[in-house]
Amino acid sequence: MAQGLRAAIDFLLYGWLQVQTLTTRPRYAEHSRETFDAVLDTCERIAREKYAPFNRLVDTEEPRFDGERVVLPRATHEAWQAYAASGMLAAAQDYELGGMQLPYTVEAAGNAFFAAASVSIGAGMLTVGNANLLLAHGTPAQQRAFALPQLAGRFSGTMCLSEPQAGSSLSDISTRAVPDGPDFESDALGPRYRLRGNKMWISAGEHELTDNIVHLVLAKIPGPDGRLVPGVQGISLFIVPKKLVDTEGQLTGERNDVALAGLNHKCGWRGTTNTLLNFGEGRYPVRPPGLDGQGAGAIGYRVGAVGQGLRCMFHMMNEARIGVGMAATMLGMAGYLASLDYARTRLQGRPLGPAGKDPTQPPVPIIQHADVKRMLLAQKAYCEGALALELYCARLVDEQRTGAPAAADEARLLLEVLTPIAKSWPSEWCLEANSLAIQVHGGYGYTRDFPVEQYWRDNRLNMIHEGTHGIQALDLLGRKVRMEAGRGLQLLGQRIAATVSRAQGDAALQAHAHALQRAWQEVLDATRAAWADDDAAAALANAVPYLQAFGHTVLAWIWLDVALLAADAGDAAQRGRRQACRYFFHYELPKIAAWLQVVRTRDLTCAEMPEAAF
Amino acid sequence: MAQGLRAAIDFLLYGWLQVQTLTTRPRYAEHSRETFDAVLDTCERIAREKYAPFNRLVDTEEPRFDGERVVLPRATHEAWQAYAASGMLAAAQDYELGGMQLPYTVEAAGNAFFAAASVSIGAGMLTVGNANLLLAHGTPAQQRAFALPQLAGRFSGTMCLSEPQAGSSLSDISTRAVPDGPDFESDALGPRYRLRGNKMWISAGEHELTDNIVHLVLAKIPGPDGRLVPGVQGISLFIVPKKLVDTEGQLTGERNDVALAGLNHKCGWRGTTNTLLNFGEGRYPVRPPGLDGQGAGAIGYRVGAVGQGLRCMFHMMNEARIGVGMAATMLGMAGYLASLDYARTRLQGRPLGPAGKDPTQPPVPIIQHADVKRMLLAQKAYCEGALALELYCARLVDEQRTGAPAAADEARLLLEVLTPIAKSWPSEWCLEANSLAIQVHGGYGYTRDFPVEQYWRDNRLNMIHEGTHGIQALDLLGRKVRMEAGRGLQLLGQRIAATVSRAQGDAALQAHAHALQRAWQEVLDATRAAWADDDAAAALANAVPYLQAFGHTVLAWIWLDVALLAADAGDAAQRGRRQACRYFFHYELPKIAAWLQVVRTRDLTCAEMPEAAF
Repeated sequence: MAQGLRAAIDFLLYGWLQVQTLTTRPRYAEHSRETFDAVLDTCERIAREKYAPFNRLVDTEEPRFDGERVVLPRATHEAWQAYAASGMLAAAQDYELGGMQLPYTVEAAGNAFFAAASVSIGAGMLTVGNANLLLAHGTPAQQRAFALPQLAGRFSGTMCLSEPQAGSSLSDISTRAVPDGPDFESDALGPRYRLRGNKMWISAGEHELTDNIVHLVLAKIPGPDGRLVPGVQGISLFIVPKKLVDTEGQLTGERNDVALAGLNHKCGWRGTTNTLLNFGEGRYPVRPPGLDGQGAGAIGYRVGAVGQGLRCMFHMMNEARIGVGMAATMLGMAGYLASLDYARTRLQGRPLGPAGKDPTQPPVPIIQHADVKRMLLAQKAYCEGALALELYCARLVDEQRTGAPAAADEARLLLEVLTPIAKSWPSEWCLEANSLAIQVHGGYGYTRDFPVEQYWRDNRLNMIHEGTHGIQALDLLGRKVRMEAGRGLQLLGQRIAATVSRAQGDAALQAHAHALQRAWQEVLDATRAAWADDDAAAALANAVPYLQAFGHTVLAWIWLDVALLAADAGDAAQRGRRQACRYFFHYELPKIAAWLQVVRTRDLTCAEMPEAAF
Repeated sequence: MAQGLRAAIDFLLYGWLQVQTLTTRPRYAEHSRETFDAVLDTCERIAREKYAPFNRLVDTEEPRFDGERVVLPRATHEAWQAYAASGMLAAAQDYELGGMQLPYTVEAAGNAFFAAASVSIGAGMLTVGNANLLLAHGTPAQQRAFALPQLAGRFSGTMCLSEPQAGSSLSDISTRAVPDGPDFESDALGPRYRLRGNKMWISAGEHELTDNIVHLVLAKIPGPDGRLVPGVQGISLFIVPKKLVDTEGQLTGERNDVALAGLNHKCGWRGTTNTLLNFGEGRYPVRPPGLDGQGAGAIGYRVGAVGQGLRCMFHMMNEARIGVGMAATMLGMAGYLASLDYARTRLQGRPLGPAGKDPTQPPVPIIQHADVKRMLLAQKAYCEGALALELYCARLVDEQRTGAPAAADEARLLLEVLTPIAKSWPSEWCLEANSLAIQVHGGYGYTRDFPVEQYWRDNRLNMIHEGTHGIQALDLLGRKVRMEAGRGLQLLGQRIAATVSRAQGDAALQAHAHALQRAWQEVLDATRAAWADDDAAAALANAVPYLQAFGHTVLAWIWLDVALLAADAGDAAQRGRRQACRYFFHYELPKIAAWLQVVRTRDLTCAEMPEAAF
């Protein structure tokens, strides 16, 4: 399996995105294709040795709480140690922070191997995101005490946003943070608060994989009247470590008042502990060492300004959304490659037509049946297309970080528009790919003797966490395509037009170019029609179908751009890419008409359905 | 939940299909709406008391083999006993066989409650089908010894078709049946053979729920040269009981040589044992009592003529396919109703637009959000539409059995055309409904604390068993729409035209009528274009997209016909049906364009993909 994945990544990374050219930039000057390859080799090897063999194990041996500790399989500990030892936690960081100064694109490509091998053992996405947030918004002391130990793998990180009563609607969180005594502002680790509340869906919220866990917690600071400020502007951000540390990040020996309230038992993705956490319920009463702490509650250190919590957190959420998209993509790839292997070896049936009518002829490998080919080609188109999109977005992150100012700004804005697609599209279509992978296997695919049913179960999470499909859709149609007077949409249109223009010169791609041009125009028309006036309820009533159509159009563009590079008809892999592109244009892109129609007409069939009529 | 389901069934059964009019036919003369209602009441009650409370239990406590016996939860035993005691196993049988002479439509509606409550505890579909097959093709002695005990619930039944190396391709089965000694034809239970071979995916293949298990087994009788006849014409059908019986169906005390080789561990549907069985491997060597049996192997009694096995078995498979469609539909309904309950009580977020901008206002039930309504209305349209289709097909079965000759023949042919849709469409779209039910629940839906993730896992089986999607598609486009010179397709077209014609007189439905008319024409055009010549490989290359488009068109017709009856705008339930119809026409039917395009153009993108290019 890893071979097919590596080939796909190599082609996209070096052939299509030309990431080796980043080495001309000062930040990456010490890198070369060889150092990039070495990173990919290492990731591929660790994923093969420490992750893949245990993917079923972590599904069967779910995390359990023995009353004191959360118990995970030994394999999970060994996988974490190998991952931390690889240096990947600090892959993109400055050399002076112990990092490798790798482009984000290469980091993302390297991490893809872990997601494909065992998505739920996990590869530190939250830890890296947590550290990155602190490096962007924390004080130097906070960075030293909390970020650096995470980059070294000693600590791990979480993001604590949701609460049992507040999932998508963060403005309704009720976790409270009150200043911890009159001297609360004099703590070396930042303004010190006491937090009380419950946080739900916290991945890796409790375990013994690392010495400590750094929770980044959204909470509200009560006003002088003791009441919480309604809405998101009342939200601030806090570091709440599981165990207290000194300014060097050393454990003081005192536990903070963060308690496991329960483990969530999921349909899939079972290798990752998912928790309900109680902050400040009094299970671990705590006084900050050496200071006259007074309040009850978990100790937290504010990051950034009061009321700026969500803004800071979004820094972490955007990367997390690309990470989710990549995870969904890799589950799709894993299923595709497993079903491809199966289809090449499983003998069943005979060809359609006269040749197949003779039952004395031996059965053929099922890959020879047109419908099996259809299911494999659909998977290839979904998953390799999604992989290209995720790497494209990762490359935009690098551009934003190291490009010339105008290019960096353009990359930033394009990322804003593409992030909802990068998150949602693979969540939906690589899940569909996993369903097709089961179908290729027939009855065997539905058993736990084959890996594909687990990929499918694991992948179902991705449409939910880090912002549901519905939330991504509102973000796209409600905000992203309109922000900065629609400039992001225009930028994307320019890139699409550039691809169309190149493809018009290629006889085999001309028709696709024309279809893409028309599709993009339909997307623009629907966008305008949806926002014919400022009635948000009418405009957004069909935000999800819009998201789906937008996503399919973006993927058609990605495929056409990839196909432009795959002209060598003598090469089987290139031929396969062209065929996948053709599949996408013939079988998938036409679907947008049905989705856009309801957007364009502002169809209110759903919105107007009376509750009593269900 | 049961309430919503009962209301939907009552409306379709009595309002739409008018099954109470069947009581004017002699066979059902002693029935009335009251007796039908009493059956539905009983089924609803048993399902509520004996099935629903244990649906999660049977998922967690999978069947296990203790080395001697397959152990199932006590609840499964109690559910079976209650079901058998209800008389539903013989619901449609003659009074003289101990049956209720119920119309099949009412039987199917009654069984729907069990599928909704716990699809994998099961309600004897295979047992009833097995008995029905014997009543159609078995000798009187076989019926007495094997069918009647099944109708009474003492025995249960299986169908043994697939083998590990032969799933979809039955022509490749290799289970052998050889005459059991020179007097093999003189056994009172039918021509006696010795069987050796392995059968895979056998549901309820081993358990202790009943005194005995009656396996109906496809096998090949070797020719004089000792070789098996290739192809399906070599297949015969055998009764292979787990334990031997006398001519009265009493156990002789001797076990037959049918041995459990292994339990399949599935992604879902775990309440039903699924097995690999070894026939005649010698674990239970057996001599037929009182006869000079000589061979080695499991004893089997042939049913029907040599070489006619598959034809006999299809008698059972068609009912099984409607049963699978109904099971998929009920899983969808269960998820729909669970997510509807959740959406009505879960508070989260505020309305879009100015009204929702004030965070001091309390959050609203999520059913008020347009996208949640969309997800609920889609589920309603998929599941209630599928339910209508299944009951319509069940009604055709009744027409075939008790209608006047011309009507009966018409019903038979319509059933031929609709069966692939009745099986495949709910398998695909009620699975999608289950995914939407998870999505409505957000993170909670992904946990095992809520029922919807199990419905989704359970439902994934339905696209696989009893003929995969691919097989249904070949059956539809390759055989059903062409049989009898296309008369089945014409008959369906006439019924659609009749609905269209009535809807044209209804101002609110006119546009739908027009859309359906156009859609049907597109289906016909695509059918013709696919079969522009006799090149089956080209015609059938896109059989699955054809199946999907055909299915969506049939469902649009079903919805339009239902909506014609739902004119009373003052009634919330009727308003809901009209809205679901409208949803289907606005959001779903337009999808057929993309599917049909590749059929019409005989697109070979998938078929021509070289194996090496994947």
